Amino acid sequence: MKIDILTLFPDFFNTLYNWSIIGRAYEEGIIQINCINIRDFSKDKHKRVDDYPFGGGAGMVMKPEPIYDAMQSVKGPNSRTIYLSPQGKVFNQELANELSKEEHIILLCGHYEGIDNRIIEHYVDEEISIGDYVLTGGEIPAMVIIDAVTRLLPGVLSSEESFTEESHFSGLLEYPQYTRPREFNGYNVPEILLSGHHEKIKTWRKIESLKATLKKRPDLLERINLTKEEKDILSQIMDCRYEK
Amino acid sequence: MKIDILTLFPDFFNTLYNWSIIGRAYEEGIIQINCINIRDFSKDKHKRVDDYPFGGGAGMVMKPEPIYDAMQSVKGPNSRTIYLSPQGKVFNQELANELSKEEHIILLCGHYEGIDNRIIEHYVDEEISIGDYVLTGGEIPAMVIIDAVTRLLPGVLSSEESFTEESHFSGLLEYPQYTRPREFNGYNVPEILLSGHHEKIKTWRKIESLKATLKKRPDLLERINLTKEEKDILSQIMDCRYEK
Repeated sequence: MKIDILTLFPDFFNTLYNWSIIGRAYEEGIIQINCINIRDFSKDKHKRVDDYPFGGGAGMVMKPEPIYDAMQSVKGPNSRTIYLSPQGKVFNQELANELSKEEHIILLCGHYEGIDNRIIEHYVDEEISIGDYVLTGGEIPAMVIIDAVTRLLPGVLSSEESFTEESHFSGLLEYPQYTRPREFNGYNVPEILLSGHHEKIKTWRKIESLKATLKKRPDLLERINLTKEEKDILSQIMDCRYEK
Repeated sequence: MKIDILTLFPDFFNTLYNWSIIGRAYEEGIIQINCINIRDFSKDKHKRVDDYPFGGGAGMVMKPEPIYDAMQSVKGPNSRTIYLSPQGKVFNQELANELSKEEHIILLCGHYEGIDNRIIEHYVDEEISIGDYVLTGGEIPAMVIIDAVTRLLPGVLSSEESFTEESHFSGLLEYPQYTRPREFNGYNVPEILLSGHHEKIKTWRKIESLKATLKKRPDLLERINLTKEEKDILSQIMDCRYEK
């Protein structure tokens, strides 16, 4: 997959290329990440990329021409152009999945008070927001999308299993994990995990996964299709039959 | 404000210190960011920080001791310790506001299949998630929180105005912004913005802001307290009386 990032801060991404799983995927050529400096496309002699908003108000707005020209420099027939924006569709695992099937993604990072609306209206395929909070620019959101999408590309993670049980992958939150030592500061690992009973451990994890979701994010339970087994466990949890 | 990041990838944050508004706040001493390498607290001769999960399963789990020791090395009486986790409360502007009032925040970044649950249960004040998607570690989410919170600290942004009209700050999405040129690729800036009528522009922007929210994120309208004026405009939009 090819990812082009249009930004005023290309250096900000320098550490991404060496970071963990993304770094490995980049080194192995599974993803090609390329940062394009929008400022290079300014025709202004001072290389300005922003200007005052029409109609007044605080802050500066990014001018349409340099963005347009930067986009044109990378756009191909199969490009999907995304503007990282607090106005966008809220990013989630389903959308990550969808994006992971693309050949070429262009991530446009805004800054200042935003970008000229004509770019959004006429030249961007969609706006994506990573959540309901105000950030300085699209750079960190672009990293979020790159991370979430790269993990889903074939060959990036070592085994299929290593992601299918994670929180939000199946829709439920993950069960609690424990490792050595068995006792730490007086707190013990749950006995069941030391039992060697694979079937019982599997059931315990399913119960804990449902419990965590019910306790921390009950809204998720409404959005996902539970299996019959999960529904049964859930109703038993609600009846406190599985409670300690 | 003091922010300590506990991570296995301290270098990943290198570019954050120079980046835009965060870079400025860091240089001016408004925020002190400090990265602590959890690996430095491993007592293992191979500096290992992870181990196999009890009960089996794919992936590795971060051991409790190095994390605990790293936490103890920075913890003070007024620290708020946050574990970045997909299981957490979903981060939003309200939570950013709350965090911006803290003296000291410790951001714990997990990796691999997660961290030993005893740390979460007994030593972390809260879990925060930046959204419903699977990421490689807590590093990018930590950046999201640092960015959102730093912007709210006194003296970081140049004028109060420059953030109060942004999307999610007031609860509504922002109105569209335009800058020069008036005509770009055949697309014009809306006439009203060139009129000089400050009152009319203000009303137009309020209408556009409500329209954008209604079109792109109607769920937000249920969560915020609209003024009487906003409610009136909204019902007129729904009656199409403000439609072009």
